[in-house]
Amino acid sequence: MEITQREAALQGMITPAMAEAAQREQVEPEAIRRGLADGTIVLPYNRKRAERRQAVAFGKGLRTKVSASIGLPLEGGSESEERKKLEVLLAAGADAVLDLSIGAGVDRLREPEAELKDYLALFRRHVLSTSTKPVGTLPQYEVFACRRDARRGGILATTVEEMFDAMERHAAEGVDFFGLHSAMTLKALELARRQGRLTHMVSWAGASLAGWMLHHQQENPFHRHFDRVLDICRRYDVTLSLADGLRPGSGHDSLDRAQVQEMVILGEQVRAARDAGVQVMVKGPGHAPLHHCHTTVQLQKQLCEGAPYFIFGPLATDAAPGYDHITCAIGAALAASAGADLICYVTPAEHVRFPTVEDVRTGVISARIAAHAADVAKGFAAAVERDAALSQARGWQNRKAEQRLALDPDGLVSTRSAAGTPVGPAAEAAAGSEDMAKEINCHACGDGCSRRVLAEYFRTPVEFC
Amino acid sequence: MEITQREAALQGMITPAMAEAAQREQVEPEAIRRGLADGTIVLPYNRKRAERRQAVAFGKGLRTKVSASIGLPLEGGSESEERKKLEVLLAAGADAVLDLSIGAGVDRLREPEAELKDYLALFRRHVLSTSTKPVGTLPQYEVFACRRDARRGGILATTVEEMFDAMERHAAEGVDFFGLHSAMTLKALELARRQGRLTHMVSWAGASLAGWMLHHQQENPFHRHFDRVLDICRRYDVTLSLADGLRPGSGHDSLDRAQVQEMVILGEQVRAARDAGVQVMVKGPGHAPLHHCHTTVQLQKQLCEGAPYFIFGPLATDAAPGYDHITCAIGAALAASAGADLICYVTPAEHVRFPTVEDVRTGVISARIAAHAADVAKGFAAAVERDAALSQARGWQNRKAEQRLALDPDGLVSTRSAAGTPVGPAAEAAAGSEDMAKEINCHACGDGCSRRVLAEYFRTPVEFC
Repeated sequence: MEITQREAALQGMITPAMAEAAQREQVEPEAIRRGLADGTIVLPYNRKRAERRQAVAFGKGLRTKVSASIGLPLEGGSESEERKKLEVLLAAGADAVLDLSIGAGVDRLREPEAELKDYLALFRRHVLSTSTKPVGTLPQYEVFACRRDARRGGILATTVEEMFDAMERHAAEGVDFFGLHSAMTLKALELARRQGRLTHMVSWAGASLAGWMLHHQQENPFHRHFDRVLDICRRYDVTLSLADGLRPGSGHDSLDRAQVQEMVILGEQVRAARDAGVQVMVKGPGHAPLHHCHTTVQLQKQLCEGAPYFIFGPLATDAAPGYDHITCAIGAALAASAGADLICYVTPAEHVRFPTVEDVRTGVISARIAAHAADVAKGFAAAVERDAALSQARGWQNRKAEQRLALDPDGLVSTRSAAGTPVGPAAEAAAGSEDMAKEINCHACGDGCSRRVLAEYFRTPVEFC
Repeated sequence: MEITQREAALQGMITPAMAEAAQREQVEPEAIRRGLADGTIVLPYNRKRAERRQAVAFGKGLRTKVSASIGLPLEGGSESEERKKLEVLLAAGADAVLDLSIGAGVDRLREPEAELKDYLALFRRHVLSTSTKPVGTLPQYEVFACRRDARRGGILATTVEEMFDAMERHAAEGVDFFGLHSAMTLKALELARRQGRLTHMVSWAGASLAGWMLHHQQENPFHRHFDRVLDICRRYDVTLSLADGLRPGSGHDSLDRAQVQEMVILGEQVRAARDAGVQVMVKGPGHAPLHHCHTTVQLQKQLCEGAPYFIFGPLATDAAPGYDHITCAIGAALAASAGADLICYVTPAEHVRFPTVEDVRTGVISARIAAHAADVAKGFAAAVERDAALSQARGWQNRKAEQRLALDPDGLVSTRSAAGTPVGPAAEAAAGSEDMAKEINCHACGDGCSRRVLAEYFRTPVEFC
């Protein structure tokens, strides 16, 4: 049996995937290997997935990354639109993609279980064969979605075998990482009930599983059979993204006893996964006011022994529906500067409607801005140098260099070409050239030009005024 | 002679403006009086301005506010568009407006000094008679703009008397607060030169004044004659917004010696203004990486003895031109949670082109989101309660309450009505009512519904899935 990237790292080996990830990141391959060995880095890289996949690592000392989610919803949605979103999120610079499909899309008939499962698999295969980046799924989504029909018994009729069967199938298809609500125990649910939350549960799969556990009075099957989870993940080298089914759904519920209880259990599972040679990261909220961001990240890092933190924003306020790409950017910048490693994007459609292709693009760019701002704050050299280079290009009115260095060159071009006068009367002077503009030709003041005096003083080109 | 709001406060009086500001803020009038007396609150309220003006206070213990800038640019621009922006920024919830006009607009002939001055005054009077919120100007803008013509000698031909004449006129017209680059001394300029900045100066008025000072080898006239500044401000009760002409224009230059030197001098001027009975706040950058935000605010509060801090973002990264409303929201949320009191908005057009009406709207909303997120983090009760109420409305699918509580109800409505399925199959169930939805009618799973089990457990309405 082949070994996982983590096992290779523990044996001191640098695999081709590690070397590739290191090159992409501009770090030494040894830095990736060391991070994989100590568990502070993951390299989601299912060994069954061959097509179009880049090696991308997440974790300590690496650039903050962005993950984007797509997927066919329960009602409505269309395969062609989700395929378009996949294209757009990759072009916009996402570092990972999550396929959260639970429906077949309007372009296909909705029929009971067997066919829905096939439709979901078909779309998943499209994502796996198209994405150049790591692909994640939540296998529970498929299981619950297929049972979600009175003719199939409803979600409560789901069997434990179906849950593990889905994991095995997704792993065999090449999925690189799994979201899994394995730490949401009956005890954690009881804590949430006693707490009196404002928003009880906001995770779709987590809530479905919680109802199932309560109805059957059975402990969380992924917790009970965590060894089976690890066996599957180890055989295919699927990276675990241990998710918090009880993640707070509002700033009000942030850092309550249920969330922290689940994080304690997540920490134990991180240790177990590492011991089994399985790569593991931890998923986080969600919703957290600014003054909770640092504590949330520090607590996760401490309880989960430095495992990479994959975080949903968090949204810094609940009061801006329609603008959650901005509430996410605020929270994510702060959380990432405190150590979060991978940001799950949030689109302007969050809490309002099913996102459009344009929403997906906006979500990715906004999350990348937050990630980059955090990397600057952490002193990540490439990020600091990029900001400095862009500032210099801006000072010299070098439009071409600005465009090359912008986090979203397309967005800059469309903003520039939209209604409104470009900044500065001679702003286009150097637009066509990578050369630095030597002088801006403003003659409004003649000999009485104040900027010329200033330019001589600072020994810079004359700026327009 | 009448006394200023500050002098009244020092005498233990609660003026009608203080009472009105307190009511708007939902604090005791005594809290406003005390803040005015100790200088941690300002209430820009020129006693010559009667029309349409609300009393709005900025400072410690109060809601974080947002200021929006408009104004006719040097080239292009139109009066009708700037008037529209004024309407839009007020409707979007800005708490103050800065008129930064330096041109006459395409709808008027561009002629030498006398007429341009008249055009600028005409537009300013429109702003003063239309705005319900405090209005600020930078009188230097007018002076330099009117000299900016070789036929008028250029900016270098500006006289000190012209500078003070403009201040006196703006004050007499009713302008509530003045931006003024009074701490940018020759010594501070020399520090900036020796530092070797990446972006030397990005303030239009500051750079114009700096060139003038260097050419004439004269100290900053507002520094030299600060007593004249105070005399004008005291007579009309104009609040000073002491601005940093050397504010960093890139994250690279943040907290350099020139910036900090200027802040030291600003602190001395704050003391002098207070001693003269003049209300005073301090303007800040601009550009600062996330890890500088707290230090920048703490330094200002310490050096300037707790004076309210009016801050431009700061932009958390320089690498996202076209998205500076987002880089501003990130920096502003952090700076405001560290104590900044008033945020100067930044639009998506920043660094790219002259902003459109839509840019202005986006800029105000983005800055308000940041301000609100900071108020939540500071535990400001109204902000925390609004987030909780909106989260609860969201949980109960109460669309009408969500809309009422959203920071931008119009933006929420337009997002909701845009392409894309609303979230949840029965999402519109309670849309027309302020009543809480009692149950969501999803029957997909029949008796096998997992959510029904969960709802009974948490004693909440059944959520759709």
